[in-house]
Amino acid sequence: MIRFYCDYAEGAHPAILDKLAQTNFEQTEGYGEDRFCRQAREMILAQCQAPGAEVHFLMGGTQANLTVIAAALRPHQGVVATDTAHISGHETGAIEACGHKVLTVPNHDGKLSARQVEQLWCAHQEDPTREHTVKPGMVYISNPTELGTLYSLKELEELSATCRTRGLLLYLDGARLGYGLAAADNTLSLPDIARLCDVFYIGGTKQGALFGEAVVITNSRLKEDFRYLIKQRGGMLAKGRLLGEQFLALFEDGLYLRLARHADEMADILRDGLEQAGCPLMVKSCTNLIFAVLPDKALGKLGEKYSFSYYQRVDEEHCAVRFCTSWATTREQVEAFSRDILQETR
Amino acid sequence: MIRFYCDYAEGAHPAILDKLAQTNFEQTEGYGEDRFCRQAREMILAQCQAPGAEVHFLMGGTQANLTVIAAALRPHQGVVATDTAHISGHETGAIEACGHKVLTVPNHDGKLSARQVEQLWCAHQEDPTREHTVKPGMVYISNPTELGTLYSLKELEELSATCRTRGLLLYLDGARLGYGLAAADNTLSLPDIARLCDVFYIGGTKQGALFGEAVVITNSRLKEDFRYLIKQRGGMLAKGRLLGEQFLALFEDGLYLRLARHADEMADILRDGLEQAGCPLMVKSCTNLIFAVLPDKALGKLGEKYSFSYYQRVDEEHCAVRFCTSWATTREQVEAFSRDILQETR
Amino acid sequence: MIRFYCDYAEGAHPAILDKLAQTNFEQTEGYGEDRFCRQAREMILAQCQAPGAEVHFLMGGTQANLTVIAAALRPHQGVVATDTAHISGHETGAIEACGHKVLTVPNHDGKLSARQVEQLWCAHQEDPTREHTVKPGMVYISNPTELGTLYSLKELEELSATCRTRGLLLYLDGARLGYGLAAADNTLSLPDIARLCDVFYIGGTKQGALFGEAVVITNSRLKEDFRYLIKQRGGMLAKGRLLGEQFLALFEDGLYLRLARHADEMADILRDGLEQAGCPLMVKSCTNLIFAVLPDKALGKLGEKYSFSYYQRVDEEHCAVRFCTSWATTREQVEAFSRDILQETR
Amino acid sequence: MIRFYCDYAEGAHPAILDKLAQTNFEQTEGYGEDRFCRQAREMILAQCQAPGAEVHFLMGGTQANLTVIAAALRPHQGVVATDTAHISGHETGAIEACGHKVLTVPNHDGKLSARQVEQLWCAHQEDPTREHTVKPGMVYISNPTELGTLYSLKELEELSATCRTRGLLLYLDGARLGYGLAAADNTLSLPDIARLCDVFYIGGTKQGALFGEAVVITNSRLKEDFRYLIKQRGGMLAKGRLLGEQFLALFEDGLYLRLARHADEMADILRDGLEQAGCPLMVKSCTNLIFAVLPDKALGKLGEKYSFSYYQRVDEEHCAVRFCTSWATTREQVEAFSRDILQETR
Repeated sequence: MIRFYCDYAEGAHPAILDKLAQTNFEQTEGYGEDRFCRQAREMILAQCQAPGAEVHFLMGGTQANLTVIAAALRPHQGVVATDTAHISGHETGAIEACGHKVLTVPNHDGKLSARQVEQLWCAHQEDPTREHTVKPGMVYISNPTELGTLYSLKELEELSATCRTRGLLLYLDGARLGYGLAAADNTLSLPDIARLCDVFYIGGTKQGALFGEAVVITNSRLKEDFRYLIKQRGGMLAKGRLLGEQFLALFEDGLYLRLARHADEMADILRDGLEQAGCPLMVKSCTNLIFAVLPDKALGKLGEKYSFSYYQRVDEEHCAVRFCTSWATTREQVEAFSRDILQETR
Repeated sequence: MIRFYCDYAEGAHPAILDKLAQTNFEQTEGYGEDRFCRQAREMILAQCQAPGAEVHFLMGGTQANLTVIAAALRPHQGVVATDTAHISGHETGAIEACGHKVLTVPNHDGKLSARQVEQLWCAHQEDPTREHTVKPGMVYISNPTELGTLYSLKELEELSATCRTRGLLLYLDGARLGYGLAAADNTLSLPDIARLCDVFYIGGTKQGALFGEAVVITNSRLKEDFRYLIKQRGGMLAKGRLLGEQFLALFEDGLYLRLARHADEMADILRDGLEQAGCPLMVKSCTNLIFAVLPDKALGKLGEKYSFSYYQRVDEEHCAVRFCTSWATTREQVEAFSRDILQETR
Repeated sequence: MIRFYCDYAEGAHPAILDKLAQTNFEQTEGYGEDRFCRQAREMILAQCQAPGAEVHFLMGGTQANLTVIAAALRPHQGVVATDTAHISGHETGAIEACGHKVLTVPNHDGKLSARQVEQLWCAHQEDPTREHTVKPGMVYISNPTELGTLYSLKELEELSATCRTRGLLLYLDGARLGYGLAAADNTLSLPDIARLCDVFYIGGTKQGALFGEAVVITNSRLKEDFRYLIKQRGGMLAKGRLLGEQFLALFEDGLYLRLARHADEMADILRDGLEQAGCPLMVKSCTNLIFAVLPDKALGKLGEKYSFSYYQRVDEEHCAVRFCTSWATTREQVEAFSRDILQETR
Repeated sequence: MIRFYCDYAEGAHPAILDKLAQTNFEQTEGYGEDRFCRQAREMILAQCQAPGAEVHFLMGGTQANLTVIAAALRPHQGVVATDTAHISGHETGAIEACGHKVLTVPNHDGKLSARQVEQLWCAHQEDPTREHTVKPGMVYISNPTELGTLYSLKELEELSATCRTRGLLLYLDGARLGYGLAAADNTLSLPDIARLCDVFYIGGTKQGALFGEAVVITNSRLKEDFRYLIKQRGGMLAKGRLLGEQFLALFEDGLYLRLARHADEMADILRDGLEQAGCPLMVKSCTNLIFAVLPDKALGKLGEKYSFSYYQRVDEEHCAVRFCTSWATTREQVEAFSRDILQETR
């Protein structure tokens, strides 16, 4: 079985395990105050060109999201997100469990526009009964989005400008950030993101690490006491060094982007294979996620050899499915799939 | 610097890293539904002689505590614990952040007695204004306790009987459970704990793993939908396999208890050294935690070579400090300390 | 200014004030354990033909909703409601502040159908990643709805049957229940509601009381410790007698329904007036709420003499507005309006 | 039965009911935006000499406490209070249900000292593991305290100075504030309280109103969006006018203090009676609460004629009980009690 189901099916890239093994017997402070974490933080801040920012390492995406949002909002504030946002439908109500409503708006290829945020804010402000509704306090976006699409520099600049004008915090979930930064059609850099967002995270779990996400806080207001929040929400790893070591391995010589580019390239081959087989793509994307419409008749045979995830029914004979490549996906795997899909859809 | 500060200063026992390396390229399901987790669960249940119980792997102790307690209690219920309990003073209000009060009672050598629980319950029931107070819903104990002491089989049986009579859930925090099970004066077995508690966890983080705690739920009422709670509270590791693999390494051939016994033995040597140097122990204990009263004058010199943690001031010239051994502590280290303390306290 | 803006613009029906004045100097127990509350509870249970149910008096609708839902759900459960539901958009995220997501579905004239609930439940159950989503635990409906429409006996029976089959609790918000029970096209009785719902409330605030809602709990599982929840959420009135006295005044001789019928009749006249003036009604309704489409040009003049609330824009020249009658609305007021609207829309 | 059990056994002072009756048919805006609330707010601010402050009317003390604290604190912050504080033991964990720990310290006659606050703050700041503990964010005091004692101007000035130096908010619960302001030994004025506290409330429920507490916010940081919080926590009364009307009645001609002084005087007579009968008072107090030690043998007979509340056992033959007078207590009642207790303790 070849897994195109997700980008976290293996353990970790060998460089990660090597780093852990090499440093294993060194004794360090706990809770992320060790030298590996310090080094990794500095390296990330340098690459973000954000010397005044703060980096905190957390273990997973839901944990990062709930900790950031709990730290940032007052009780009556909600977080604006698309209806496809991970926090909206795939985190078992983690945000609501922290007391906050997710204020959803329809998505455009998985994205939220500055205009939508402006409209939602104005609708709130102009509502004479607004005190009876949740006040927008933060805007949450994912880049790449949950559909694999990317915000352009222009789109992010507009969102950021709107948020700053309206006093809204801008938070970017980068669970798959590397796949975006490495994509052929990407226009955003880490320094752009650091400059335009109040807080964001650089995902490790889905990009070759065993686990780990690096939360970067650029807005001073959000920095205060953030470690208390990490501890309170169960995210302060005793052996915090493990996170520092992994991010060191990923960032000290460009491994992070190399792995991401590989996955994106494998996805490009897979996309080509799908298009040659006449399977339309749901959204335009150059990252490691592919949403394609396949005939039902092809799914059975392909499903015996490949795993991928069902997304939604399209018509009586077709449904949309999601494919996902990773650092560990091989050229042989995507080429084999391309041949097989061509065969099955003839 | 020799660290007696904590039991999580190194990475992991090499067998853990080996297991991760050996299985690294195998593709598995995510979120703990892989074969390693399944195997580890079965192994743990067999060793607990609790075939009907459930095992869930979480990443840390605070996370385990808050997830179990959030899953178990209704909003008006609180959890009874000693004033030294980890949930009371060392988790940044994680339990309160889930909406529940920690109802503290004074400790006896770090322990809670059945009698204290009975009295607290009766005081609540007999209070005509009890609806204006938090209702006890669960009893939380740690074994070993935060002071390194152990519940005897008799004490745990009494606590369990009281809890069952009064409709209270009994939860045992086993962050350092192995050090207890391996202690010279231990009278409890894993099957005893599984039989007497409604839920407990077997700690990995402080006992040689990179991270990980195995929550064992024996009470059927607590099993329902527990995985939803794990996800909601940010504790569902994408590569859940890492937890299964580590617990396999610890439990498949008795490594867990061997490492614990080693740490306990090193602690015994350290205790002897302290007693020979005339430093009284605060509590009687055979586990890896030692609380001893040292003269201030000795602390300076020892502090240059060894790290340990300050606990509390005893009088103008003495204070209590905590020493902690681990799987990685060597005989040379504890013997060196014993010589040095003797020197310093002469 | 004649107010058709809401049904809580005056103090209370004089019978309520009389009751308070008559009993004012009698000393009673606090917190709803007095003889007035006891009597009022018995009276309500008799009229519901639900001798085994429990009645609790709360001060307002949001308070009732949040207390009931907090008491009923486990942390990972959400409450299903229409997108027009009061708990969804008009309570400042009170339900989310208790940790629960409101799972919204599109409304049909303000109503939720058994089929929608069935579909949502099945979609959840069939989702292989359902543990990553909020689990439906309760269904919330309002009767009359926020649009003034009514559930038929058949609709409520179907909803109830679906909820019971699927293990979902059914909660009916009756902030304006009397206006429904008294409506010309009503097919539901209090005993029907008590039989088909697990919990519901009979609104007082919007129906002639100073304040007060009577929560009726028929499902035994929801009764346990409900008063603790009331106290915890700030809803336990010290002089709870005030609630008992008011519900006594409303229920001891049928005042509640008489006041509601009057308001409904006044609304009928207003509806006639609107239709004669060519203003279409948005939904069919015989209760005290009216949603009508008016030409913008008529709004200015009418707005000088009458207050009503803006609902939404319909097209460039029309918008929908809401009118509301109450026990205190007079025939002269609605007839005057009918004349004026005819004038303005000519 | 003569009730010395509490100060909320009757309805309301007749002036309150009169005010409601007089204004009953006037139509007003809802939710506290009416002219009565506006007038009452201005009157209170004038009497507090705090023109820049804000006043919000809530329905009860627990509601006021939980709304203020939820609005003020970030998730990792707790509120410091004595172990006798109402929020600590008599509100069913309302503060914890909002996510915040109550950090209790021992009381001195029901009071908290500036020194205790300073020590607790310093202990937190000096703790190297402070991120693992709850951070003090607010100090909660009651005046009069739950034991009926009063803070002196000097004590409040010291507390306020410490809080401001340490960045802690100071909140004064004035459920029985009038009884304190009217007490013979009082040294505090409303303007003092407004100047020294960041937020406080003036209690109505226990001082002659049907219900109602006036929260006064002097610290600008706490004002922002407070009404959203009121709505979210279920405290926004639809007919908010009722609160404005009641506070108007209490404050427009000094009724509030007149009623309080009467109750304090009745308490003085009762205190004299107790002392003449040889029953020691637990604390020195000139307010309407009396804690006295009575022989068990006297309780039976007295309990047939008078109600009061049990506080705690003192020794095998004595226990402490609480007496409470109110605006409605008569001279005949307290004199009768004084005679009877003298008789019973002979």
